[in-house]
Amino acid sequence: MSKQPRQPPPPAGRPERTPSGLALSGERFSATYRLRADDRDHALARARSICLEQTVEFPWEAIPDDAIRDGIVGQITALRQVAADTFDAAIHYPDEAAGAELTQLVNVLFGNLSIQPGVRLLDVRLSGGLARHYRGPRFGAAGLRALLGVPDRPLLCTALKPMGLSPADLADLAYTLALGGIDLIKDDHGLANQAFCPFDERVARCAEAVARANHETGQRCLYLPNVTAPYPDLSRRARLAKDAGAGGLLLCPGLAGLDSMRALADDDALALPILSHPAFQGSLAVSPDAGLSHRVLYGLLNRLAGADAAIFPHAGGRFAYTEAQCREIQAGCTDPMVAVPPGAAEAPADFAPILPVPAGGMRLERIDELVAFYGPDCMLLIGGDLHTRPADLIASCRRFRTLAEQTVGR
Amino acid sequence: MSKQPRQPPPPAGRPERTPSGLALSGERFSATYRLRADDRDHALARARSICLEQTVEFPWEAIPDDAIRDGIVGQITALRQVAADTFDAAIHYPDEAAGAELTQLVNVLFGNLSIQPGVRLLDVRLSGGLARHYRGPRFGAAGLRALLGVPDRPLLCTALKPMGLSPADLADLAYTLALGGIDLIKDDHGLANQAFCPFDERVARCAEAVARANHETGQRCLYLPNVTAPYPDLSRRARLAKDAGAGGLLLCPGLAGLDSMRALADDDALALPILSHPAFQGSLAVSPDAGLSHRVLYGLLNRLAGADAAIFPHAGGRFAYTEAQCREIQAGCTDPMVAVPPGAAEAPADFAPILPVPAGGMRLERIDELVAFYGPDCMLLIGGDLHTRPADLIASCRRFRTLAEQTVGR
Repeated sequence: MSKQPRQPPPPAGRPERTPSGLALSGERFSATYRLRADDRDHALARARSICLEQTVEFPWEAIPDDAIRDGIVGQITALRQVAADTFDAAIHYPDEAAGAELTQLVNVLFGNLSIQPGVRLLDVRLSGGLARHYRGPRFGAAGLRALLGVPDRPLLCTALKPMGLSPADLADLAYTLALGGIDLIKDDHGLANQAFCPFDERVARCAEAVARANHETGQRCLYLPNVTAPYPDLSRRARLAKDAGAGGLLLCPGLAGLDSMRALADDDALALPILSHPAFQGSLAVSPDAGLSHRVLYGLLNRLAGADAAIFPHAGGRFAYTEAQCREIQAGCTDPMVAVPPGAAEAPADFAPILPVPAGGMRLERIDELVAFYGPDCMLLIGGDLHTRPADLIASCRRFRTLAEQTVGR
Repeated sequence: MSKQPRQPPPPAGRPERTPSGLALSGERFSATYRLRADDRDHALARARSICLEQTVEFPWEAIPDDAIRDGIVGQITALRQVAADTFDAAIHYPDEAAGAELTQLVNVLFGNLSIQPGVRLLDVRLSGGLARHYRGPRFGAAGLRALLGVPDRPLLCTALKPMGLSPADLADLAYTLALGGIDLIKDDHGLANQAFCPFDERVARCAEAVARANHETGQRCLYLPNVTAPYPDLSRRARLAKDAGAGGLLLCPGLAGLDSMRALADDDALALPILSHPAFQGSLAVSPDAGLSHRVLYGLLNRLAGADAAIFPHAGGRFAYTEAQCREIQAGCTDPMVAVPPGAAEAPADFAPILPVPAGGMRLERIDELVAFYGPDCMLLIGGDLHTRPADLIASCRRFRTLAEQTVGR
């Protein structure tokens, strides 16, 4: 760690105003940004401008109150050179700037910075006080395992598709997949409320079909409808899904808004596990030196917003993520997120680890490799590859399960 | 335009299934993607994979029904080389894939593609049928001018800040800014519902202060509180704002979800103009060869979702947008969005043009330049620069107004 740079000294001649009486706890959360900069002075100037941009968005000289200057503006706590033109800056913000709202927390972390090139949000650490505003995952990895009665092997997931099938066809498919031993059957994220496949009918039929299969097999397969929906409809669809017997929910926070996921996860009347799908989120991480790190986007933010498992494309499928990026995501799904205060007698409560769900064109033949990479604490999502021989769909599902079971204890 | 490539022929041996009886109108909307590709064959292969990825997300061979293959899967209608390694592909999707929901329309346009590098959504054209599902801007540029009684000069906007001021301090500030002749006074997008500045109290005080100033000046200054909020609170805050006398709403769709803006814009009980703020959206456009074009992100999507004016950083301020990108945004705010069918007697109804709001560190000294660039149909947003001499705030506002008035008829 480098020495801690100071804020610029108050310039002479700035306006004198009565302190506003801001009551601040002194608790702060931290963000680590990777900055492109010519040299250390440039990096320090960029970090200082971030301290202003993400809080007061106001010239330092014009801030009318010392309490705001000292208490609200971000503070650089570390600046470290990591390459010739690259620096990591840790910046602390007061908990009060984020309040108790996820929308505003994300705004402080990266709202206006999202518009800047050459700055990437690498990591986030909450204070214990800020963390108390968020429930996080209701189930998490352990809760999902308990719900399914699967203590040790990777969980098995697949999707109902293709778009264009009727609710009756999808229900037939769900029944077959459940008979085949899949743990979680989700709607394809492209199934919304189209006229050819209305949400209400689809969910009723598919939930019934999976319940019927469970009755026959004695297993606990969960059906997760896609509740990604227009703002006014989302809550209603989630409740309807619950009432119809859905065992969980699929949501695309990139389409519906991250806080809508938090609201679903926090709803005690639902109390359903949530699987987060990355549609329309990927652009937030697509530039290597801007946007959000894979760790933050797919790991930390999903957990903070209450996802119990996070879908992302594993390396070598239809998408272009590297193994290093996938490793980052796994760490974001499981690492501590809450800072331990210096000298604390015990660590503050942290968020439950959630399951990484490597996906995006995975195949049965890669299961051993996937489990070798992630270990058993993951959810394997295989879609199209189960359908290569439609007449053999049940056999393909059973093979999926057998291959996953065989990884245990290796 | 190049010749129109065909879909791949159905491979031999694919499963025969009864057609699902899909009822499709034949109306299609189109997306234009810029693809990085080694050569034309590679580009065609990428475009074909997009046709599947954004609809069925299923292998072509495994699609169980010709009606889905012919009717649901996207269709390439043009493929044009624009540079050695760059191609533009136009792809049509059936209206029914998007249904009547903005979340799903965005999903079809760019959901999974957001995760891919080397593909950028350049443009979108709706069919007349799809466009009828969206009201778009309730006011638009013309409606905003009528509401404010400002027929020809650029509109003047500023923000209440810095974060950390109390509701009483912000109300004092709002009163002063309204006396100075500002047209639209918005909350800083960092004002949420923090303990030091609760939403309800802030909005009540600031709306009252602006009304009081309007009473004195005879003008129609609008106060636009920031209603970006957690999912369960957003509607309530918007209604509270309306009841308190707010003249419009500020929303960050990147934080709250794009469809939440559409819901606010469509709400006849609110019927307030909406100013869209780009916080947390910028990453979607930050990579030059991935994500969304500036045109789509700040122009087309904002209009589709009902914004009446769109804030973005103008070139040469605190952010790094180029003049070409700003020109793209302006075009997205004003260009037709609905395709005219071949041989149509008249053009279908289109979405109202909205006002571009160049911002991000603009200064009074740049007003002539800004109006020369955008013409008079824009909203000028100047924040910090009005506060360089706090004692002269009213004078700075009046100068802002005079400078804008002087551009008329030049």
